[in-house]
Amino acid sequence: VTVVALITDFGLDDTYVAEMKAALFRLGPPQMRLLDVTHAIRPGDVAAGRWALQRIWPQLPAGTVHLAVVDPGVGTSRPAVAARTDGRWYVGPGNGLGAFLAAAPDVAVWRLELPSPPPGFQASSTFHGRDLFAPAAAHLASGGDPAHIATPGRCDDLGAAARTDTAWRVVWVDRFGNLITDLRRDTAAARRLEAGASLTVAGRRVRGPVRAYAEAARGELIWYWGSGDTLEIALDSENAAARLGVGPGLAIALDRS
Amino acid sequence: VTVVALITDFGLDDTYVAEMKAALFRLGPPQMRLLDVTHAIRPGDVAAGRWALQRIWPQLPAGTVHLAVVDPGVGTSRPAVAARTDGRWYVGPGNGLGAFLAAAPDVAVWRLELPSPPPGFQASSTFHGRDLFAPAAAHLASGGDPAHIATPGRCDDLGAAARTDTAWRVVWVDRFGNLITDLRRDTAAARRLEAGASLTVAGRRVRGPVRAYAEAARGELIWYWGSGDTLEIALDSENAAARLGVGPGLAIALDRS
Amino acid sequence: VTVVALITDFGLDDTYVAEMKAALFRLGPPQMRLLDVTHAIRPGDVAAGRWALQRIWPQLPAGTVHLAVVDPGVGTSRPAVAARTDGRWYVGPGNGLGAFLAAAPDVAVWRLELPSPPPGFQASSTFHGRDLFAPAAAHLASGGDPAHIATPGRCDDLGAAARTDTAWRVVWVDRFGNLITDLRRDTAAARRLEAGASLTVAGRRVRGPVRAYAEAARGELIWYWGSGDTLEIALDSENAAARLGVGPGLAIALDRS
Repeated sequence: VTVVALITDFGLDDTYVAEMKAALFRLGPPQMRLLDVTHAIRPGDVAAGRWALQRIWPQLPAGTVHLAVVDPGVGTSRPAVAARTDGRWYVGPGNGLGAFLAAAPDVAVWRLELPSPPPGFQASSTFHGRDLFAPAAAHLASGGDPAHIATPGRCDDLGAAARTDTAWRVVWVDRFGNLITDLRRDTAAARRLEAGASLTVAGRRVRGPVRAYAEAARGELIWYWGSGDTLEIALDSENAAARLGVGPGLAIALDRS
Repeated sequence: VTVVALITDFGLDDTYVAEMKAALFRLGPPQMRLLDVTHAIRPGDVAAGRWALQRIWPQLPAGTVHLAVVDPGVGTSRPAVAARTDGRWYVGPGNGLGAFLAAAPDVAVWRLELPSPPPGFQASSTFHGRDLFAPAAAHLASGGDPAHIATPGRCDDLGAAARTDTAWRVVWVDRFGNLITDLRRDTAAARRLEAGASLTVAGRRVRGPVRAYAEAARGELIWYWGSGDTLEIALDSENAAARLGVGPGLAIALDRS
Repeated sequence: VTVVALITDFGLDDTYVAEMKAALFRLGPPQMRLLDVTHAIRPGDVAAGRWALQRIWPQLPAGTVHLAVVDPGVGTSRPAVAARTDGRWYVGPGNGLGAFLAAAPDVAVWRLELPSPPPGFQASSTFHGRDLFAPAAAHLASGGDPAHIATPGRCDDLGAAARTDTAWRVVWVDRFGNLITDLRRDTAAARRLEAGASLTVAGRRVRGPVRAYAEAARGELIWYWGSGDTLEIALDSENAAARLGVGPGLAIALDRS
């Protein structure tokens, strides 16, 4: 049973996600499973989409097609790509959303072309999610040859992530107000923190790593390795984002204490 | 694999949609696929529900059962109907939600009766979505004969749409603030616009048709044929609805320029 | 086809629900069906989670695994449990969320242990929904023996509901502003109401039971047996919660009139 996992910035109120799924139903394999990873990416926030994609990527089985559409440049000259690594597929824009895949030694990249619309349909220049990416995902989920819908591409076609490896930021605020950052547990910065470097956010010191929220003292900011293996910050039993008045984009700082 | 596509004004916070699906799971075929088209129709906004239904209708394969519940008159004397056209089913209230189906030459209409509740359940006079429409959709998705659950009806039982063919309005505002209207591309009004008639909304001129959002000049209102083949209005790279302070129901006007 | 029904307080914006489903996809049976009952439980509102669970429980077929995670004490010493009654499973925290199951004569209870993470994964101390409860639900949905993942437990491990049987409250406000209470139709209090006891909420008298919303006079508060067989309160055709300025937790009172 092949999984097609969807990440978009379309929200769930509009019919857009359903229209992508309608294309998957028409064109995909009968045994396909759909997974809504999140559709709540802020419109055009490619960094948050990349974080969500990188987080869910290893949690889904080999064969999964990750269909990700956070695409502020839709209709412009940014490439549309498919990439395969680790037995899994990425289908989406080449705007940096799948930038982390370029580092995989076995990555292969293709450039997608806008298909002819099926009879009775008119392909839209504004809705590549439905008219380009979903049909490509359906083709790959069916075990189809990428050469039938795409031309060979290069890693550069995936696009670049804007951030450097020496600056980190809050990339997501969850329902509980916890601040989720893009500082990954398998990096040199993580080793510096584990060795005692201090962490500050919004001018306030953060203690960590802790193992459970309950370790926080009253009103204390704590950090811990979150369930997605990146650094997270919480405030005792309160909503950290609301109390600090912060949100996605906020920088975090590491220093020798 | 039969698709059952759901449109409601129930939202996703309450358990109502899940209860409809529970009825589909109990009574429907084992190979059924469920599709949430949208549950964010404003409570009782039959026109928006009709727009969503008409939009998704041709995108789903033959055999699909469209289960649509925007039903401010639930429990009153409005009929409950099933209709078949084009190899697809509509199941829902006869309040105009499926009014556009009446124009199809091959349409057939039935009137549904409230079924006896299964043992251990008590049918509710307030939740026809779960107790009447979902069981009917399950029956039809299983290939059941409509005569077993309904009596022959007439096109009038579908109800009428309130609007005329010479006035159009904003029927939906999407997550990006784009104004989606009910002016369809295959109408005489569309031909007038393509021939140079001018379009105004909220007293402002709208330029179009354009092919991509990127064609807008700074601060300019543009129109284009949207991905649902109705006229849409956008504001450069901004949220048009928020900037203009408008929402569903707003009239649009066509004039010879 | 086994159903796994999910209730959480995670919301749908974050990736948490998808990560639980990813675990179900990796570890569950190929023919499993997932049902999102609701993810909009207010963070930590165990009473609302219990209400939703008790409401959906009988509506899903025998064999269903109810996976419910409203778990403010995650990572502390509260037990993690599985319970079976009536051919259905509960998997979740032992904090009272499944308290009503303890009254069933055939109930059997197990205590779950945190499993070793699969290769390449690191079990989180903060995300038992994904790392403990979802794998247990997948095991049970596959027909696995609970003894392989749990030790025998007692009814006490389910935890207790805080409320008494002589006080009732508003436990949910739905999208339409209707006030849904935890006063069940099969109780002595219900019989008192049917026999003419009066009902007041926020100091206002409520008339009932009525059979349809349309029975309300202008501006009148009415009560009726809702579609979940608990008492609900509505205000004519308005949003009762907004007009009265009330929400979950509000007490309702019964008196001889």
